[in-house]
Amino acid sequence: MAPLVATRRRKADRSSTPLAPVGAQPAPVDGRRRRGQATRAAILHEAVQLASTDGLGGLTMSALADRMGIPKSSVHAAFGSKEDLQVEVLRTTRAILIDHVVTPALSAPAGYERLVALGASWMKYLEAGVFEGGCVLSSSASELDGRPGLARDQLVVIMNEWLRFVADNVRAAIANGQFESTTDPDQLAFELHGIGLTANWHHQLFGGRAAFRYARHAWPDALARHRVFARKPVR
Amino acid sequence: MAPLVATRRRKADRSSTPLAPVGAQPAPVDGRRRRGQATRAAILHEAVQLASTDGLGGLTMSALADRMGIPKSSVHAAFGSKEDLQVEVLRTTRAILIDHVVTPALSAPAGYERLVALGASWMKYLEAGVFEGGCVLSSSASELDGRPGLARDQLVVIMNEWLRFVADNVRAAIANGQFESTTDPDQLAFELHGIGLTANWHHQLFGGRAAFRYARHAWPDALARHRVFARKPVR
Repeated sequence: MAPLVATRRRKADRSSTPLAPVGAQPAPVDGRRRRGQATRAAILHEAVQLASTDGLGGLTMSALADRMGIPKSSVHAAFGSKEDLQVEVLRTTRAILIDHVVTPALSAPAGYERLVALGASWMKYLEAGVFEGGCVLSSSASELDGRPGLARDQLVVIMNEWLRFVADNVRAAIANGQFESTTDPDQLAFELHGIGLTANWHHQLFGGRAAFRYARHAWPDALARHRVFARKPVR
Repeated sequence: MAPLVATRRRKADRSSTPLAPVGAQPAPVDGRRRRGQATRAAILHEAVQLASTDGLGGLTMSALADRMGIPKSSVHAAFGSKEDLQVEVLRTTRAILIDHVVTPALSAPAGYERLVALGASWMKYLEAGVFEGGCVLSSSASELDGRPGLARDQLVVIMNEWLRFVADNVRAAIANGQFESTTDPDQLAFELHGIGLTANWHHQLFGGRAAFRYARHAWPDALARHRVFARKPVR
């Protein structure tokens, strides 16, 4: 949880702070540990795809071992429990989301421009089909509902962090004078997040490109409604 | 599939046509068949709740029998296969959605007023917690992705029917002169559907009432953007 805590600490500059990348592992001290870490990374890579198609519930040690053609004991050695594996899959998905969606948007200044860039990178990421079966973070909310535990707690932290990142950029846009002061940051974050969520849902169900076309229209449209435009002089 | 076909036939009046209720069973001819149908209905009632919490994938004959405290053979006798059970759960969920969301909105005239009513009844239905674990139709899209079969086909039909119902009412609003003629009915149906989908997602993950507050604001706001307002006279 270290990186999330680090993000929280930098409250003063939250809107321009990237969602911190997932914490680097300590440097390997010998070949055995290095091999162990490589195995863990390889398993996680497959686990993210398996969770994407089969859900976090379908992410069993044996299904994963079958998929990779390795003994179940190797998966057990790398991850102590199914819950441990689920938590790591959620954290890895978060890291992938940061790489594909958040980081590209950070080259734009905080506020309106960054929100525009965020929509563009999010749609590009969804359209690229990074995950075989759609975004794990989107599909896990209903799956983990009523299943308290570490995986659900991790998902709540990640999604709160994401919604806060969006809302913080709405706040920055208001502070910059780009959005009306009456704009509710959490309301708009809900709506913007919903556009990506719905694009993922629609594409999962119907395939094709229509979902991305709708979402690419809806995103800037949602932002435009809050813009402060320079008043035209009255003649 | 009969009721969906019936809806399709009445193309000329689609926007004012209710999503047809799930077809009535033929009248029972004897006590044995009546008991069989009652058992089937009781199993379906529990199956919908189980699918809501555990997903369509978690909807196994044995989990259902355990939940109900009946022998697995009784579930097997009522439903030939897991896929049969999944399809019937989706159809039952559709019928529940019609009762709670569509039917109340039909008392308003087709077009803008019906869209307003639809948003209100949808939020009321989500807030009432009709399903223990949220809407099965919302959560099934990602679960069934990459799993071709009768259940996925059924979900595609139901969701297409729903999106068409919304889009048809947008068309009616344009025809009534309530919405701008430039409004894209499928685009707005995507956006409106997304508001309910996101409310379901948000509530599943975070609990509380914030999701409904956001959605109740976003829905009429999305409609208002397309309204044709009477022009004020120039003085």
